[in-house]
Amino acid sequence: MKEHALKRFFGPSSVALVGATEDLDRFAGRVLLRMTQFGYQGRIFPVNPRFESVRALACYPSVRNLPEAPDHVGIVVPAAAVMDILEDCALRGARFATVYTGGFAETGTPQGRAMQAQITEFARRTGVRVMGPNCNGMVSFVDGFAMTTSATIAGPRKAPGNIGVVSQSGGAGQTNVMWRAQELGLGISYQVSCGNSADLNILDFMQFMIDDDATDVVMVLAEHIPDGARLLEVAHRAAEREKPIVMVKLGRTTAGAHAAASHTGAMAGADAVCDAILRQCGVIRVDDCNELAEVAMLLRTKRWPRGTRAGATTISGGNGVLLVDLGASIGISFPEYSDKTKECLADLLPKLATTGNPTDVTNAAIGKPDIFRRCIETIAGDDNIDAAIPIFTMSQASDVRQAVDAAKAVAKPVVVLWIGACNDDPAFTQKTLIEAGVPVYRNTLACLKAVRAAMRYGEFLMNRRDPPARPDGIDTDRARALVDSAHGALTERVSKQLIAAYGMRCTREALARDADEAVRIAREIGGPVAVKIESADIPHKTESGAIRLGVASDTAVRKAFDDVLQAARTYQPEAALDGVLVQAMAPAGTEIMLGAVVDPVYGPVVAAGLGGVYVEVLRDLAYRAAPVDAEQARAMLRELRGYELLEGVRGGAPRDIDALCDQIVRLSWLAHDLRGEIAELDINPLVLLERGAGTCAVDALVVKRVAGEA
Amino acid sequence: MKEHALKRFFGPSSVALVGATEDLDRFAGRVLLRMTQFGYQGRIFPVNPRFESVRALACYPSVRNLPEAPDHVGIVVPAAAVMDILEDCALRGARFATVYTGGFAETGTPQGRAMQAQITEFARRTGVRVMGPNCNGMVSFVDGFAMTTSATIAGPRKAPGNIGVVSQSGGAGQTNVMWRAQELGLGISYQVSCGNSADLNILDFMQFMIDDDATDVVMVLAEHIPDGARLLEVAHRAAEREKPIVMVKLGRTTAGAHAAASHTGAMAGADAVCDAILRQCGVIRVDDCNELAEVAMLLRTKRWPRGTRAGATTISGGNGVLLVDLGASIGISFPEYSDKTKECLADLLPKLATTGNPTDVTNAAIGKPDIFRRCIETIAGDDNIDAAIPIFTMSQASDVRQAVDAAKAVAKPVVVLWIGACNDDPAFTQKTLIEAGVPVYRNTLACLKAVRAAMRYGEFLMNRRDPPARPDGIDTDRARALVDSAHGALTERVSKQLIAAYGMRCTREALARDADEAVRIAREIGGPVAVKIESADIPHKTESGAIRLGVASDTAVRKAFDDVLQAARTYQPEAALDGVLVQAMAPAGTEIMLGAVVDPVYGPVVAAGLGGVYVEVLRDLAYRAAPVDAEQARAMLRELRGYELLEGVRGGAPRDIDALCDQIVRLSWLAHDLRGEIAELDINPLVLLERGAGTCAVDALVVKRVAGEA
Repeated sequence: MKEHALKRFFGPSSVALVGATEDLDRFAGRVLLRMTQFGYQGRIFPVNPRFESVRALACYPSVRNLPEAPDHVGIVVPAAAVMDILEDCALRGARFATVYTGGFAETGTPQGRAMQAQITEFARRTGVRVMGPNCNGMVSFVDGFAMTTSATIAGPRKAPGNIGVVSQSGGAGQTNVMWRAQELGLGISYQVSCGNSADLNILDFMQFMIDDDATDVVMVLAEHIPDGARLLEVAHRAAEREKPIVMVKLGRTTAGAHAAASHTGAMAGADAVCDAILRQCGVIRVDDCNELAEVAMLLRTKRWPRGTRAGATTISGGNGVLLVDLGASIGISFPEYSDKTKECLADLLPKLATTGNPTDVTNAAIGKPDIFRRCIETIAGDDNIDAAIPIFTMSQASDVRQAVDAAKAVAKPVVVLWIGACNDDPAFTQKTLIEAGVPVYRNTLACLKAVRAAMRYGEFLMNRRDPPARPDGIDTDRARALVDSAHGALTERVSKQLIAAYGMRCTREALARDADEAVRIAREIGGPVAVKIESADIPHKTESGAIRLGVASDTAVRKAFDDVLQAARTYQPEAALDGVLVQAMAPAGTEIMLGAVVDPVYGPVVAAGLGGVYVEVLRDLAYRAAPVDAEQARAMLRELRGYELLEGVRGGAPRDIDALCDQIVRLSWLAHDLRGEIAELDINPLVLLERGAGTCAVDALVVKRVAGEA
Repeated sequence: MKEHALKRFFGPSSVALVGATEDLDRFAGRVLLRMTQFGYQGRIFPVNPRFESVRALACYPSVRNLPEAPDHVGIVVPAAAVMDILEDCALRGARFATVYTGGFAETGTPQGRAMQAQITEFARRTGVRVMGPNCNGMVSFVDGFAMTTSATIAGPRKAPGNIGVVSQSGGAGQTNVMWRAQELGLGISYQVSCGNSADLNILDFMQFMIDDDATDVVMVLAEHIPDGARLLEVAHRAAEREKPIVMVKLGRTTAGAHAAASHTGAMAGADAVCDAILRQCGVIRVDDCNELAEVAMLLRTKRWPRGTRAGATTISGGNGVLLVDLGASIGISFPEYSDKTKECLADLLPKLATTGNPTDVTNAAIGKPDIFRRCIETIAGDDNIDAAIPIFTMSQASDVRQAVDAAKAVAKPVVVLWIGACNDDPAFTQKTLIEAGVPVYRNTLACLKAVRAAMRYGEFLMNRRDPPARPDGIDTDRARALVDSAHGALTERVSKQLIAAYGMRCTREALARDADEAVRIAREIGGPVAVKIESADIPHKTESGAIRLGVASDTAVRKAFDDVLQAARTYQPEAALDGVLVQAMAPAGTEIMLGAVVDPVYGPVVAAGLGGVYVEVLRDLAYRAAPVDAEQARAMLRELRGYELLEGVRGGAPRDIDALCDQIVRLSWLAHDLRGEIAELDINPLVLLERGAGTCAVDALVVKRVAGEA
């Protein structure tokens, strides 16, 4: 089997530390102390021209003088000296370097950024992979190697486990994530804090841990996502290997999230987009770092619930009520058991006990040799149940152990909610069980959130499909030609021609150069028409007054033609006027807004929402990375708070949801195919008609991408 | 000072236990064990005809034979024997009894309910106050008295603190709430689990703890609220004494919450109503039991923030970002410090440190004798800051102690977020500090939620006002007469007359008995009119077809009069028809829905929302216990997701919010005054006009209360 490219980053045969010292007031001194105390068994080469030896190890004046090519070089020297050391690393044949030193891009200065760019260029040129700068290193519990100052690894080395930790931050990644997880009783495989990410970034390390057999779950604290397309790839690989990624993603509350959502350009970089895309690719997003460990504790058992139905046992009625109440609030149901399960439970339990769900086994069960085990096994065996949650409060060790035995005996997730302590053995704690691999929770909501996350992940894995297939009736060449022929914003008419090239249905319309032509077009359309100025220089026609609606006779069409031209000339004398657009009036129906944007991080994104006040006041939009298939489009619509309106509410007829899904799919392919040419695209409104009657895009606006912009 | 009526319930001079035994497999045996192990210093009288002595205490055959009147009698006998024992208690002069036995109303049987009703009647008749049945007793750390089986109090007795615990549940109240709080390092004053509440209920005990000087914060786990009016009284007293109540209230997800909200009848008992009323009376609602302790930990310091602005120090940049990000998501800002503060911080801190907020004091601060203390004091001294949050990760004890010193030196809340452990003294933990009275959190979001709760409570105390004053122009006698004259539902016209008697503005309209009269009325109104059947038997006029809109000429009015009568007769031949209502057409404006209902728990409640799809699809309604003042009405409107629409959005003119608030106030007084006569009242739509133009109720429906219904 081929070794993963990053394997020796975490498990080097030999390591050099540049700037090594015995002085524990200095960063490098603490790194060396931690490395030796952690029990690293490889060869350590301190590098420092000032010393002959450091900590009884031979010290070298330069990386160039090392007796062998080190797998990994740690660099703790002033920022200005970093590049020279890196060049030495390349010369001496090192494979990896970690730059701890700060003073680069994080300073926000041009000089800092330039110095960091040199590191990036170095890595690309030489093939030496570099972590940092401005980072606090890594720990491999798998390989027994640590190169960090973090006090979180002081003391006896903890046993490795199957959970990896990735962050940009040092302190928060090491303390809030790794140390807190270990304190809970979870074992860690690798931890890495990659700092400014001049070369190696969090996605590289997520990729490594997903490929590496020692890791089953990856916990990530991400300040930002370096590359959305790469994230999708890494997440895809993780899903193939059924290795969940749990993530705290900072930046929930950037200004972008508050910007008006009726303009899709505003959604670029918005947290709602990030949130939707993480969900789409199966990454489990949580709010705070402790939730990373709480969710990972269940996921590391690799038992995926097949639905959202749980069964519980309890001896505390109040705890049963609390569980069901909080469960319902986050989408977990506690359904009735099958008749067979009820019969089995009735045989097992004393008369006063209930065979309901949660099952109140009553105090009579306490201390009985196998009643908890048999109840839990019975419940887990019910086809109506996807996960079993035995609840304990102040309990005897033997009772709690029965839940552990049951967990081993069944294949479904068994999740212990143990609120209290052990009555008869103070040394027997939640941590005892967690260290033995059992998911044990001490708070009801935390327990339920973890179960819900596992349920979502199970659903995600079940619903994974092949990449969406391109629909028929798409003319990409024509679409591209239309964009190429325009400058900046496309006019309404050209915008609609563009979406029509992707098979989207639009209002009937044509461009009139003179009043006679306007009348001819209006007659062809039949019925009242809309008359609008056509000019790429006047994207907001209502504001300019260059628009007339419900124009119903030849005379009126002539007058509207003149009025609109006049209004446009008054509004913006320099505007280039292409003519006047004569258009069928919008049919009556539900107003929808569709949009697409090329997000600087996540690439082409499609958005859908109800139009009018829904999008303007309630910001009720659903997002997906493009392209999507019809099922994904339907899921987007179901996320909308106003979804009921589409199904027909209060006597309203159901709308043509299938047709709308088709239009979303087509728009998503447009966003995907033309991601290099288009910056943003709004269709607002698209009128959604009754079931069977389709849709009609009434207005559209496409803005070209400016070359060089992200 | 007068002793509180319940003082000797918790601190009896003498206690009897009926059913006492040494057998620890029996409930009463464990109660007695716990009581003696807890170190109760009063006189204990075991009662059991089967024994001469129990645990070396003289045992009595009956309560009647006791040598003195016991303050409190615990009763552990079969359900059928309970009443006889209670009568003995009354005869012997006992003041309190606690019935542990189950088998009463919780069984759901008529017999169980009847037996429980006997206990209630007994308490009312004799004045002996009874807790239970079906409960697990109480603990007083203040008095050194416990009468419960709970293993949570095993081991050395914990020191009392200033936090009380009230619940109906035994297990959850004792383990999830009390024990978990103590495990965190918090001291408890009293704990009580009042079970079925035949007499004493959670409100009685909340009242006691609020009146008692030993308790500063009350934690409540409520399965239901026994009496909404009493809750408001208790909460009012708590606010006067500045003693916060923190509550987990179960029942978030009852069917009621999902019922269509456009019909206010459906809101009765809905969780949204409970939620609004708890907020209105200053009760802090949290989701799970651990949050009770987390919030109480800060509230027990009795430092109320005066706003929502926090300042933080950190040595972990990532933790600063996490704090600000999560803070913003729940409404806590981290504003820039004043220039003076920045100057002071710049003097204190090394060059690389930032004087931003959060303040990154850098590693250079670690181990310095007073840098953390002085930074925190400086930040807390800034007028822009309402609370200070020093963050620590893996830290030295001396650094963390500086935060404690700073907390003592300043008056504002200082809340320590300490994620890691102590580097140099393993015995120095978060619990060490919590036991010393400092609020210390181990997770970012939990910390912020507690700070936010304290901020809300501070705001609640600042905004407390006198009870609302009754507005002018209310004719209660007329309103009552209108209700009295109707049977069941009031017609639209009478409903509007009723709300008009409270000064609410309605459409111009009059009842026509014949077509001539209809024409006369229509002419008086001027412009097109609406013509509707007037019949208490046909509350849903649209459905019946007995309605015509926009009727514009004499001929059309005549025809509409006939059509409407005909449609009504066809729709419901037996309906009593009062005539035909001729009404001014609704003015154009924003549709609002106002409602009132007499909630079975909380009494008269007023509701306000945006009409149409907002209320029908989004269930966007705000609630308050009636009556309210104009400021409360305004706060209701601000809670609405669609509030922006009232202020004018996308070029829409601002609406007459003042007039709407006035109408809400009037409706709330109507709901309050006629709470005995009215079951529910819907005004839908009420049209809200532009600023200065007022409001107009277009349709209204009042349903009378049926005598005997709750």
